[in-house]
Amino acid sequence: MPPTLLCCRAPPAAAADGEVESRTQPLLNPNCYRPLRRSASNSTSQVAIVGSNVCPIESLDYEIIENDLFKQDWRTRQKFEIFQYIFMKWILCFLIGLIVSLVGFCNNLAVENIAGMKFVVTSNMMLARKFLAAFFVFASANFVLTLFASLITAVIAPEAAGSGIPEVKAYLNGVDAPAIFSLRTMFVKIVGSISAVSSSLIIGKAGPMVHAGACIAAIMGQGGSKKYRLTWKWLQYFKNDRDRRDLVTCGSAAGIAAAFRAPVGGVLFALEEMASWWRSTLLWRAFFTTAVCAIVLRGLIDVCRRGQCGLFGQGGLIMFDVTAANISYHLVDVPPVLVLAILGGLLGSLYNHILDKVLQMYNLLNGYGSFSHCSYSSHIKACMNNINIHFPELFLLSRKGLAYKIFIACFMSILTSCLLFGLPWLATCHPCPLDASEPCPTIGRSGNYKKFQCPPGHYNDLASLFFNTNDDAIKNLFSKNTDSEFHHLSMLVFFVTCFFLSIFSYGVVAPAGLFVPVIVTGAAYGRLFGMIVGGHSNLNHGLFAVLGSASLLGGSMRMTVSICVIILELTNNLLLLPLIMLVLLVSKMVADLFNGNIYDLIVQAKGFPYLEAHADPYMRQLKVGDVVTGPLQFFQGIEKVKNIVHVLRTTGHNGFPVVDEPPLSESPVLFGLILRAHLITLLKKKGFLHDPLPSSEYAVEKLSPDDFSKKGLGHGDRIEDIMLSDSEMEMYIDLHPFTNASPYTVLETMSLSKAHTLFRQVGLRHLLVVPQIPGRVPVVGIVTRHDFVPEHVLNLHPSMARSRWERLRFRMPCWGKMV
Amino acid sequence: MPPTLLCCRAPPAAAADGEVESRTQPLLNPNCYRPLRRSASNSTSQVAIVGSNVCPIESLDYEIIENDLFKQDWRTRQKFEIFQYIFMKWILCFLIGLIVSLVGFCNNLAVENIAGMKFVVTSNMMLARKFLAAFFVFASANFVLTLFASLITAVIAPEAAGSGIPEVKAYLNGVDAPAIFSLRTMFVKIVGSISAVSSSLIIGKAGPMVHAGACIAAIMGQGGSKKYRLTWKWLQYFKNDRDRRDLVTCGSAAGIAAAFRAPVGGVLFALEEMASWWRSTLLWRAFFTTAVCAIVLRGLIDVCRRGQCGLFGQGGLIMFDVTAANISYHLVDVPPVLVLAILGGLLGSLYNHILDKVLQMYNLLNGYGSFSHCSYSSHIKACMNNINIHFPELFLLSRKGLAYKIFIACFMSILTSCLLFGLPWLATCHPCPLDASEPCPTIGRSGNYKKFQCPPGHYNDLASLFFNTNDDAIKNLFSKNTDSEFHHLSMLVFFVTCFFLSIFSYGVVAPAGLFVPVIVTGAAYGRLFGMIVGGHSNLNHGLFAVLGSASLLGGSMRMTVSICVIILELTNNLLLLPLIMLVLLVSKMVADLFNGNIYDLIVQAKGFPYLEAHADPYMRQLKVGDVVTGPLQFFQGIEKVKNIVHVLRTTGHNGFPVVDEPPLSESPVLFGLILRAHLITLLKKKGFLHDPLPSSEYAVEKLSPDDFSKKGLGHGDRIEDIMLSDSEMEMYIDLHPFTNASPYTVLETMSLSKAHTLFRQVGLRHLLVVPQIPGRVPVVGIVTRHDFVPEHVLNLHPSMARSRWERLRFRMPCWGKMV
Repeated sequence: MPPTLLCCRAPPAAAADGEVESRTQPLLNPNCYRPLRRSASNSTSQVAIVGSNVCPIESLDYEIIENDLFKQDWRTRQKFEIFQYIFMKWILCFLIGLIVSLVGFCNNLAVENIAGMKFVVTSNMMLARKFLAAFFVFASANFVLTLFASLITAVIAPEAAGSGIPEVKAYLNGVDAPAIFSLRTMFVKIVGSISAVSSSLIIGKAGPMVHAGACIAAIMGQGGSKKYRLTWKWLQYFKNDRDRRDLVTCGSAAGIAAAFRAPVGGVLFALEEMASWWRSTLLWRAFFTTAVCAIVLRGLIDVCRRGQCGLFGQGGLIMFDVTAANISYHLVDVPPVLVLAILGGLLGSLYNHILDKVLQMYNLLNGYGSFSHCSYSSHIKACMNNINIHFPELFLLSRKGLAYKIFIACFMSILTSCLLFGLPWLATCHPCPLDASEPCPTIGRSGNYKKFQCPPGHYNDLASLFFNTNDDAIKNLFSKNTDSEFHHLSMLVFFVTCFFLSIFSYGVVAPAGLFVPVIVTGAAYGRLFGMIVGGHSNLNHGLFAVLGSASLLGGSMRMTVSICVIILELTNNLLLLPLIMLVLLVSKMVADLFNGNIYDLIVQAKGFPYLEAHADPYMRQLKVGDVVTGPLQFFQGIEKVKNIVHVLRTTGHNGFPVVDEPPLSESPVLFGLILRAHLITLLKKKGFLHDPLPSSEYAVEKLSPDDFSKKGLGHGDRIEDIMLSDSEMEMYIDLHPFTNASPYTVLETMSLSKAHTLFRQVGLRHLLVVPQIPGRVPVVGIVTRHDFVPEHVLNLHPSMARSRWERLRFRMPCWGKMV
Repeated sequence: MPPTLLCCRAPPAAAADGEVESRTQPLLNPNCYRPLRRSASNSTSQVAIVGSNVCPIESLDYEIIENDLFKQDWRTRQKFEIFQYIFMKWILCFLIGLIVSLVGFCNNLAVENIAGMKFVVTSNMMLARKFLAAFFVFASANFVLTLFASLITAVIAPEAAGSGIPEVKAYLNGVDAPAIFSLRTMFVKIVGSISAVSSSLIIGKAGPMVHAGACIAAIMGQGGSKKYRLTWKWLQYFKNDRDRRDLVTCGSAAGIAAAFRAPVGGVLFALEEMASWWRSTLLWRAFFTTAVCAIVLRGLIDVCRRGQCGLFGQGGLIMFDVTAANISYHLVDVPPVLVLAILGGLLGSLYNHILDKVLQMYNLLNGYGSFSHCSYSSHIKACMNNINIHFPELFLLSRKGLAYKIFIACFMSILTSCLLFGLPWLATCHPCPLDASEPCPTIGRSGNYKKFQCPPGHYNDLASLFFNTNDDAIKNLFSKNTDSEFHHLSMLVFFVTCFFLSIFSYGVVAPAGLFVPVIVTGAAYGRLFGMIVGGHSNLNHGLFAVLGSASLLGGSMRMTVSICVIILELTNNLLLLPLIMLVLLVSKMVADLFNGNIYDLIVQAKGFPYLEAHADPYMRQLKVGDVVTGPLQFFQGIEKVKNIVHVLRTTGHNGFPVVDEPPLSESPVLFGLILRAHLITLLKKKGFLHDPLPSSEYAVEKLSPDDFSKKGLGHGDRIEDIMLSDSEMEMYIDLHPFTNASPYTVLETMSLSKAHTLFRQVGLRHLLVVPQIPGRVPVVGIVTRHDFVPEHVLNLHPSMARSRWERLRFRMPCWGKMV
């Protein structure tokens, strides 16, 4: 497919005199674009649901911009500056670990005290047999807490809604959504999570902790805040996306470490689920961060053991300490465990499926009718291009949805209160066992044998599960020597309620994690399974509960090593290892036959252009030239200010090839790639030339590398804000010293699959496409993340969607990943 | 730097008539090569020390060869065939896990029984006070075992010497050394390791287990053996380096899992230390493999618990089970632990330094005088180019060294026997404690209180450590409630002896690991430290021993997460976690100031062209054009057989660009890259054409994709073995259907640093360099792994070596990695 029409741009000699051109004349003649199969598509037209709002998204710049300025800066860097950089990076990791562990501890402390207080007051009323008053206090406390959480989320930071893990995961893949790491998001995430978890909704705190950890890391890595006059020279080295990516990875690891007190599990979680790029150094850094977390948490819990933390309790966070005694299991125990794992895998994939549908329904209710149609269709991107035009309307739409969102949250709160308080009345009272290892019935906050409405000396087994915090319910389910405590039916009721309540609670506009709900549901499933198997196995029911949690986690989250280590760290028993590994493997394998990892489903549903590690098989049949979008706009090595301003104002592209044409070179030669942000900086600093002659010294002297460092979130300059006089518009800029002279290139005949590998492995934002046959243009297009998204490619080449390969992909969703 | 002289090859039209050319005329006119700064360098001239011999090495092909044949094959693949592939890959992982765990178990069983028998016999003689006879039996048993191990290693498979981890690590980085995964290497590795470990040398079995696991994986992934008529169609899909890499990664994970019974630690070890490329799927696969290992091992140990495994003991492998009781430690315990970690880091880096020097000395003794000079100089590659000519002599040299090698092994065995038997005589006998938890004195194989020469009711503390297997010594050092068992001086003697003996034993020509020696030395160091700290800490000495092991492992191996998990799995106590994390972090950080990871040092010393994840800083100042080697030899799309044969015979290159010239295209156009192995297959299959006209159908029909799959180790065809008649030599081959039409390319102006990133991240073997200014040649060179090796680059550009950056790199060896 040789280019038949080449760009017929006027040679720079003619343009240089500045008379033949007028302000209104477009830089490039629209008649002479390289012919392309389809019309221009603007890469900034990408939108996705971030938290609970629709936002435009961009890509991150991981590539090192190797221009003259950078090289000059690098050459002049002293040994001391390198020391500063390394030292500061470790200090930042230390601070992230410290702050995240403090936040996690305060989070737990607040939840245990608020929820504990609520249960103590209610229980005291129950003891006085004022059941209606107790319900009223319980329900209204929950209502107020939920309302508060959803209000601050919806009004202050809609980005803080949900778990936050999909957003962080997309960020670590190179997707930049606005405000996901802002200060107010962090604030709402922490406060909202405390409030929502205390309100007895079946939601978790691990996801919000991961997001909060990532926020803390991103804010610390932003290199100070000009707004609050917090700029420090030592932090200037971190003003780039590569270093921020590392810090955010460490922050998310610290989040899990602080939520579960599982430092090694946290590192592995960040590695297995979150990070798209990984290297040994990062592993070490994340390990350091979580080690700081673990040590700080241990110290704080030591303090709390002395009883100065109110209702925080002795156990400290959620270390369940299942079975200190030796566990013995033999070959005969394997068949029931296998069945448990298979059923757990099925339940896990069902969980994911229902959750996906429920989120879709919520989005419809929230008023994103037209958008969620796109978001959930397989041709999301094509649809989004149309939406782009109506963007302000979409925001209006989302404002209208605010009332619905709050209403749903309140409704869920009332429903949860009714179920938690109402269902235990269905259970009959059991007499206390004589050999109980703890007081029976327990009165007050936690404990295994809840009195509820029962007469003295009796307990309500369903209340022990429902009328408790989630952490305590898990503790009760995991406990040993309690095989006869719970009744079959109670466990079934608890399991079914948790299963559905946790799914419907997740979509609420408040910070809400999925880990704890899945663990508690899985534990109930495991106990129920253990009861049914009964005497056929030597394992006690507490152990079955642990294995049940593992199976549901494996079936829903689809992680292996990290979940395994998190469960080991939670239960503090290494002897379980082979059984847990078996359960995780089987449940993941079974669930993978039906659908994907829960976070991947959410990432896809939200419309993030997430790049998988491997290209889809049909991409091998396409060439890069088949997806290249046009029109290509490029600059000359020494370009007129007017042209630059015009192009920046009329397009949304973030990178432009720089081409040297005669007389600067014998023939048109690709010099490199320049970023929009750098062009705007150049215009702002006004390092202009009167004549189109190379004079890089002047510009380099006037500008420092710091001017070109990536600004913090939302701090980038816009072309609209730059005012230039008419005489300035007629001047020139020598782009050479600021152009990345080493952009990655592919031939247009390169297969799309291989270009995908290059793009993903190296972590690019722009990939230049050069012609196979040398023509008059040295570059025929730019490929971005957008061009590799399967929906986009299939939209361009519908025949591929109908091919056997694509059908196969859809029929067996996770087979590609297994390869 | 525009090319001034372009290749002036005759156009194909003139060459096509076949009359102007003769057999002797070279394909390319030597006068018309593109001028290059230096003379040709043959990429096959690379040699490295593999095991204990010098071998030529090649690179692995991880790139997918996207040619017509491949695409055709891919399009016609049925769903069933994909199922076969996925299913077989999982089955292979299952088999790897199963076989490696069986090997690991048998290995342990054999060592425990052979070494146990030796100790039982000797102890009985000691009881009868026949000390001299006891020494004679002990020393001669050790001597025979060592001699056997070193003989089979030196004669049958020198590749099996040493730990094997550096070789596997290099393989997973893309370095292909011959015979490292052959059947005989595996056999010698397993048998030799049993024999050497039983002979009381201070060497480990973990390294050899990793190598054995990798061998098993590689052999299983070779797709059957034609020699032994074991070919199965289902295995054909694994005949490529990508799949083999995955399997070898799983095999090495299984090796650690089987050696330490640490499945999660094994996965993390493979991930952190071994693998250069990693993805989520691989993590899962490795996890599956080690899970199989863990389950099989548990089953086998269950069988052994019934006492049917001879002297195997009850504990099963080396699960030390340090402290079942709760450990409590507080803030006051942190300062001594910090000091322990800092000293451990210093000791670890000292250990690495001395080991490096000792290996160098051994190589000199072994007769590699001239070679080891290169091998240990920083300009190893330049030196190797000269060696290439004298290759047969080098082999002769190594044969001459055989006697030295065996002599060193025998000497080390005698020295070890003398020390192990002699040193306990220095210790005084202690009376047995009254509250000992086990019989005192113990007589026979293992146990904490060895009688040795002491009178009844007394024990020899030094003999409890020396006169035991390494595993038992570790168990004794880690044991709790034994704070008063050992004397200061005894521990000091044991520590110093282990430290040096383990270093000198490693270089012996026998399979020898480093993990166990470092653990035992570290445990002695930790105990000694605990004794000195004494009452200032609440921690018991057993715990100090665990922390000491962690600190020495951290200081020597420099892994973090994996060592942490391995120690947790070994000691079966999660409460230690924060302390172990602290120790590992500090010791690694301290040791990193002085030198590198022990395996990296060995990889470098052996001369493997290992590619680090990051390019050295000075590479940013160089362009790809600065390192491109010449002369470039390329083929035309339709090439004469004679030309192909000539080029293959006269060069050692493994990849050749294919260029279409007029009349096939308007101007010279790069079509792709063809591999030597594929050309040889084409010549062998004789799919020739009479006329230089495209006719791909004919060739595709005659050849199947299976013909082009990568052969197993040492099974590749050689050009010398192919006989062609004169008329065949005058025929043509249409290379198009067999050429990889999507090779990765970079512009010659690309910075070397960025090209390194591309090369390393994507995992390439060849990277084509295209000219910036379109000239008459569409490709100016090929860059291979060799061209990125720092020594090579610095040799070409000595000014860089003198630059501040390079000096910085040498002065602070691990700073680059910290960034």
